[in-house]
Formats: sequence, C-alpha cells, structure tokens
Amino acid sequence: MAFDTSGRSPGQRYRRAAAVAWAVVVPLALIGFLAVHVMSDGAKEPLSQAGSPHRESPTGHFLLAAATVLVACRIGGSLMRRLRQPAVMGEICAGLALGPALLGQVSPEAAHWLFPASSLPLLDGLAQLGLVLFMFGVGQELAHVRMRGTLTRAVLVTHASLLIPFAGGTAAAVALLATDSGTGGVRPVVFVLFVGCALSITAFPVLARILADLGRMRTEPGRLSLFAAAVGDGVGWLVLAALLAGARGGATPGGLLFDALGTLALVALFLGPVRRLLRRLPALNDGRTADIGTTTGLVAGIAATSALTAALGVHQLIGAMLAGLVWPVRRRPADQVARRLARSAASTLLPFFFFFEFGLHTDLSTLRWDGRTVLTLLGLTCLATVTKVVGPAVTARLTGMSWRSAYTLGVLLNARGLTELVVLQVGYQAGIIDERLLGILTLVALITTAMTSVLLHCGRAASQHGPRELRDQQDRLDQQDQRDSVGDEGMRTGQPV
Amino acid sequence: MAFDTSGRSPGQRYRRAAAVAWAVVVPLALIGFLAVHVMSDGAKEPLSQAGSPHRESPTGHFLLAAATVLVACRIGGSLMRRLRQPAVMGEICAGLALGPALLGQVSPEAAHWLFPASSLPLLDGLAQLGLVLFMFGVGQELAHVRMRGTLTRAVLVTHASLLIPFAGGTAAAVALLATDSGTGGVRPVVFVLFVGCALSITAFPVLARILADLGRMRTEPGRLSLFAAAVGDGVGWLVLAALLAGARGGATPGGLLFDALGTLALVALFLGPVRRLLRRLPALNDGRTADIGTTTGLVAGIAATSALTAALGVHQLIGAMLAGLVWPVRRRPADQVARRLARSAASTLLPFFFFFEFGLHTDLSTLRWDGRTVLTLLGLTCLATVTKVVGPAVTARLTGMSWRSAYTLGVLLNARGLTELVVLQVGYQAGIIDERLLGILTLVALITTAMTSVLLHCGRAASQHGPRELRDQQDRLDQQDQRDSVGDEGMRTGQPV
Repeated sequence: MAFDTSGRSPGQRYRRAAAVAWAVVVPLALIGFLAVHVMSDGAKEPLSQAGSPHRESPTGHFLLAAATVLVACRIGGSLMRRLRQPAVMGEICAGLALGPALLGQVSPEAAHWLFPASSLPLLDGLAQLGLVLFMFGVGQELAHVRMRGTLTRAVLVTHASLLIPFAGGTAAAVALLATDSGTGGVRPVVFVLFVGCALSITAFPVLARILADLGRMRTEPGRLSLFAAAVGDGVGWLVLAALLAGARGGATPGGLLFDALGTLALVALFLGPVRRLLRRLPALNDGRTADIGTTTGLVAGIAATSALTAALGVHQLIGAMLAGLVWPVRRRPADQVARRLARSAASTLLPFFFFFEFGLHTDLSTLRWDGRTVLTLLGLTCLATVTKVVGPAVTARLTGMSWRSAYTLGVLLNARGLTELVVLQVGYQAGIIDERLLGILTLVALITTAMTSVLLHCGRAASQHGPRELRDQQDRLDQQDQRDSVGDEGMRTGQPV
Repeated sequence: MAFDTSGRSPGQRYRRAAAVAWAVVVPLALIGFLAVHVMSDGAKEPLSQAGSPHRESPTGHFLLAAATVLVACRIGGSLMRRLRQPAVMGEICAGLALGPALLGQVSPEAAHWLFPASSLPLLDGLAQLGLVLFMFGVGQELAHVRMRGTLTRAVLVTHASLLIPFAGGTAAAVALLATDSGTGGVRPVVFVLFVGCALSITAFPVLARILADLGRMRTEPGRLSLFAAAVGDGVGWLVLAALLAGARGGATPGGLLFDALGTLALVALFLGPVRRLLRRLPALNDGRTADIGTTTGLVAGIAATSALTAALGVHQLIGAMLAGLVWPVRRRPADQVARRLARSAASTLLPFFFFFEFGLHTDLSTLRWDGRTVLTLLGLTCLATVTKVVGPAVTARLTGMSWRSAYTLGVLLNARGLTELVVLQVGYQAGIIDERLLGILTLVALITTAMTSVLLHCGRAASQHGPRELRDQQDRLDQQDQRDSVGDEGMRTGQPV
C-alpha cells in the first residue's frame, strides 16, 4: 500500500509517507509492548509446548521442490532455445537431470532432501493436471486446423505420412518380437500395433511452433504438414485408445473389436451432439470477455470427460483431447478461455510432468549399452526418419509439389516431440512396452525432434529465398493477425511445445 | 480438423468433406484389417497378460474427484450469488458438504469411493498451490491500494479498525484462558495475541468484491475501508509471522523477540531492495505483451519465496504475500501476468483448498453444542462485530464523516471472509488453537462475512441515493476503465474472493 503521490509537492509526499509509517508503526509497537507484558506473566505458568497436537505440514518442502523443478526447466528451455532447438527439449533434459540419472548420481542425499517421498504425490497431482490440460490444448489445436489447397495431394500425403511409418513400425515390432525383446507382456498384436502407432505420430504442437519460428506457417508445405499431422494424430490416438482397451487383458478378438467400436461410438457422440450443443450455448459464443466461471467450468468439464473415458477403459488423456476437439473454436469467450488455460497450464504445470515422468520414472542410466541396444536405437531412428521423411516427400513430389517444398514437408512431419513421449509413457504404464524399449523409443523421439531444425536448415541453405526474407514476410502477416485480435494474448503458436 | 468451407458451393463442400473422411477412414480400415490378421496369428502364442508389470495409476479417479470438487463449488457459488452473498461463502459450504459433515454422513461408501486415500495427496498439491497463489494475489491487491483523502482520518480510522478489535480479541482470549479452553498447548501469550489478530483481520479481497458489487468502490467509505483493511492486514500478517516463530517452541522471550526482528528484517529486505530490483528489470516493465516465460518465472519466484520463509520458520503463505507485495504493479507485462495468474489460480485451485481444509479437516459436526460452545460463539460474534463496526465508525464520525458513511465504513471492515479462514487454519496447524476454537472462529468468520451485505442493505434503505443510481454511476466508471485497458482481462475486482 502507498499513497498516490502523482502531482503533489515534496512536502505533501513527505507528510503522506509519514502518515503511512504512523499507521503501521503505532499498532505494531502497542502489540509488541502488550506481548512483552503478557509474556512476563505467561512465563510463570507451565508450558505444554512439546506435546502440542499440530499436524506437520510438508508444504514448505513441497514448494521448494516445485520452485526447483520450475527453475531447472526454465533454464534448460532457455539454453535449448539458444541452440535453436525447441524449448521443450531443454525442459525434458532438465527433468531428467533432476532425477536419478544425474542428481541421484551426483548427490543422492541432495536428491532425497529436495524431493522427499512426502512431496512426490503432491508433485504428481500437478503433473497429471498439467498433462490433461496440455492434451486439451492439443485437441484445440487440431480443431483449429483448416485445409486450403489441393485436395488429392492432402489426402495422399496424409495417407503416406501415416501408413508408411506405421508399416515400418509394425515391421520393426515383428522383428523385435522375433528377438523376444521390448514387449511388456501383452498380446503380440497390441505390441506390434503400438510400435507402429508410436513411429507414425507427429508432434502437432512442436510442428506448429517450429513452423512459426521459421516463418513457414502459411506456406504450402507448412499448411499441408499441419493438416497431415492433425489427421495422423487423430487417427493415432484413436488406434491407441482401441489398443489400451485391448491391453487391459481378458479380451477375446471379438471383445477387442467391441471395445474399439465402443470407443468410436463415444468419439462420435462427442464430436457430434456434444460439439453442436457447446457451439449453441450462448454463454460460450456471445463474444463477451471471458469470466472466471467459464474457466472453472471448462477445467471441470475436461476433468469429467477424462474421468469418463478412464472409467470406460480408455486412457484419460484421450478424454482430455476429445474435450479440446469439441470445445468451440474461433468464438469468444470460449476460444479466449481455452487459449489462456492451455497456455498457462502448459507453461506452469508441464515441467512437473517432465520431472515426474522423465526425471523419476524414465531412468535412461539403467539402459545397458550393449550391442543390441545400440543396434535397436540406430535401426529405429533410421527407420522412423526414413519412413516419415521419404514417404510423404515422394508422395508430395508425385502430386506436383517442388522437390524443395516436398523435402521440407517430410522433415517437418518427422518432429515427434512431446506427443510421442506422452504416447510412450501411456504404453509403458499399460504394460505394452518394457522399460528398455521405453528408453530407446524416448531417445528416438528426442533425436528426431532435434533433427528437424537441423535438416530444415540444410534444406534452406540450398534455397533461393533467404530465411530473412521469408521471416520478414511472416512477420508482416503476424502483425496483421495481432491487430485483428486485440485483447487476445499472443499467437496460438506462442504455446510451449 | 475440418476444411475451410467459407464461400464455397455445396458441391465443393461435399467433395472436401468426403476427402477428410477418406483421409481418416482408409488408414483406420487398413490398420483394423492388419490387426485382425496379426491377431489370428498372435492368438496361437501363449499370452502373458496377467503378470504384465504395469503401474496402476489412480489418475482417472483423481480426475473424477477434481471434477466433483470443481462442479460442487461452482454450484455452491452460484446459489450464494443468487442470495446476494459472496460466491466464496457458497464454495466453502460446498467444500464442507463434500466432507464428513454431509456426504460422509449420508453415504460413507460414496465418499470413500469418490475420494480414496490415494487421491488425497494429489488434491492436496492443488490446494496448496492454489492457496499460495491466492495469497500472492492478496499481496498484489494490497500493493495496488492508493490513499486519497483526509490524512488524519485515514490514520485514525486505521488505528481504530486495528487496535479496538485487537484489544477485544485479547480480552476474550484471556477470558478463554481463564476457563482453560481453546488453546492448542502453546505459550498463553501466543494464544492471546493470535486470537486478537484473528478478530482484527479484514478480508481484503472480499471487501474489494463487495464494494464493486455494490458500486461503492470510489466512494469515501469505500476508499477508506480499503486503505484501513490493507494496512490492517499487513500488520496482522506481520504479527502472525512473529507468533508462528514463537509457537515453534523452545524460544525464550528474548528468542521470540529475536525471531520477530528476523522476520521484520526479511520483510524489509523484500519490500526494499528486492522490490526496487523487480521494478527496474526491463523484462517486467517494458510494456510489451506478457510471454509464457514470465508466468513460469513468477510461479517459480512465488514458490521459492514461500519455501524460503517456511525454512526460516515463518509460514509459507507470508512468503507468498510478500512476493505479491514486491511484484511490480501498474506496469506491463508484470501486472498482466500477475493478474491472470491470481485470477485463474483463485478460480481453479481454491475449490481444492475449500474441500481439503474445510471439507476434510474442519468437521463442524464434531462440535459439541453444549451451553459453553453456544455462549462462546455468540460472545465472540458479538465482540467481533461490535468492535469492528463501532470502533472505526465512531472514529470516522469524530473526524467529520457523515453518520451514514461512517456506518458503511464500519460494516465493510467487518467482512472477514477467506483471509480470516486462512489465518485460522494456519494457527490450528501450528497448534496455537484447538479444533473446537477453530470451529467456533470459522463460524464467526462466516457469520460476519454473511452479515456484511445484510447490514449494508439495512443502511442503504435509509439512504437518500437509491442503489440503482449508485450502481449506474459505478457502471459508467467501470466501462471507462475497461476502455482504458484494452487487452487486460476485466477488472481487478472480478477476482473471486
């Protein structure tokens, strides 16, 4: 609190400052005097302080752990951005460093003191909420994608970007099965399809962020890769939902099909009637400024949808993405609330996910670096890159796109990022893949994501347009966007990935 | 994802919709075919699904619990707002209803199923983070207060609003000590000063919200009560910090004084150098739109400050309020980030606090309603109301304010609301008061808060200005405010209380 000193003489300011000081000091002095006075009486009585029945609160320690995680991830993200990599890479590395991989090796005492067992469930709560809200954001991003351009090319490229890596992944999985490694103990078909899924997923938010950073958002490969990634991710999560239903065990082939159909029915219900209902609610579409109740309602709705899908045997994250798909886009205040929620949640709560899942539970240091592991890692990385880059690029070239644009398109689709890591964690927790394959596929995801900007840079070196020119053009378009949407907070693509 | 259909013929729209359908259906059909094919092979192999090493995740259940808490609090808040009470009253009642007080009585099985022991630590994490961010918001509100008007009156009214209830509270505490009830087992002086503190606190955010609702924000009693409440809350939390240092036990009178001085030094460090440093950081004051890093940095800073004060033996919430006091106000983007954080955190995370602290740990149904309890409740309610309403009102009248304005001022200062409840929980957890006195003082806080709008309404009935007229005037001022701050999200006072 302070006095308003604008446009007053120094004497007036002084008098007002003195008044504030008096208002604070006199009560404090009186209370202090009273305290000392009463205390001299109180000291004569017996004190029973040792046995006081107060609950020990781990909150202070929890806050320290939370601050450590946030600061570490922020530093990691900044460092990676200096290296022209997505910030999310640095945040994941920071999360890994706080776990047994680095901090646990350097000083187990410090790790134990910083993150005592009592703090972990509290950090888990933040991580889970962050992940659910992140997946809601992914759903919203998908709902935002619009297709403009050549139809045939879009359909063919989408099929190529989805089916070729999927075929490669299933082939690799069959090979892994033959050497009897990697499966977490579920039906072989679930394992094979899961690995196929895992290799064919593109990280939609990473892609959008890279495109925005490079100034390619509105170019033909940019739009096309966004569309292909959106369709591919949608299909991938659908298949994953069916696989999880199958992985629960006890299901016959007929039961598996039944579960898959049930999942599809749920998705149809949400994308049809629920979506239409939300688009008609006046409170979400009347163009006014968002109020607080809408935010609370949205969080409650996301949590309820996730809980519903989890209860039906589908993973809760698929429910969260569904909620993102059906929540109205391009309408105020619905869009505004969702954007703010996805942004703030992603920035604040995802570091807890990186720490909790990658730092604590993905201990890459336990990976035995024998010949087979290295071979598997190299093979899967090559397979993932080649199928994801070459397939769509050749398809795009065949439909008439220039080689340069086709190459860019393929490279862009190869960024797997956080979405892939989430898929892997889901599969690991459902017992579909074992810890070793989780570690290897995590490394594959990190490598292919890091590769994207390097490969793009190589392609750009041979370009006729300098990067500066492209970026300037995009800047002008962005500024126009911002003028169009005063009151919105930044671009969609400002979302962390 | 969808096609952009604006300005196209129905035929084109149909072709585009068909293309999207093809892009999704063909891969799904192929994968399904493959699945059935591989499955018929896989079924011949032995399945080891029972022993799959997957971790059981309580996340689905946790999300269900979270959705329940949010929806219940939202319904409670809406109902209370219909009754012209602050929404926070309804949210607290909803939190109480979900605990053993109502749901536990009606159906213990449902309560146990909805909130299993495994979900509670996760909910606790959200509650603690919400509370810390709420206290940061309180600090920011205090930092926003500017004094305009009569100096002498401001100082005198502040003293009266602080010292008269404090004196009343200490007298009541001495009486309670004489009947040997209420103390949690700490030194009597700590108990006496704590009860004094508890009765003299005004809920600053509740006050701001009531003033905005009634259209009194810019009137003389409105401004004066905001100033008095800000100074009073600041002093109250300082005293509380010193008390908590003393309640830790093992301290001599000299040690208590030493701890209090240490707390004051910490506060001085933050309000002086740290505050000046933050006001000079260009990233916080350059007027640009807030980016995501600033939000993460702010959350990390709040958590770190809270952890620091907790480590020094002062409660973590005092650290959070300190962070709110030193974070720059009225500068972009610092102000924008803080406002968004305090708003979204308060709306989304505080219901978890209401559920976790009030629902689960403040079981009012265990209060034995014998004569002494009823007498204590009535006595403390009367004492709290009379000292808080009459003292400042008479002082304001003596300095020349009209009786009507003086009455309004006193009634406004009597709203204790959430801040008081937080203080009580802090005192209970430190072992200063016992469960019975916690229940009684919680009821006192709820009653005095509910009383405020009723008493204001009574006062207004005798007024020369109709409420509609006052409200219209405030509406015009508010609209002007909103035009001045395009891009900011709503009024400060839109914050939940």
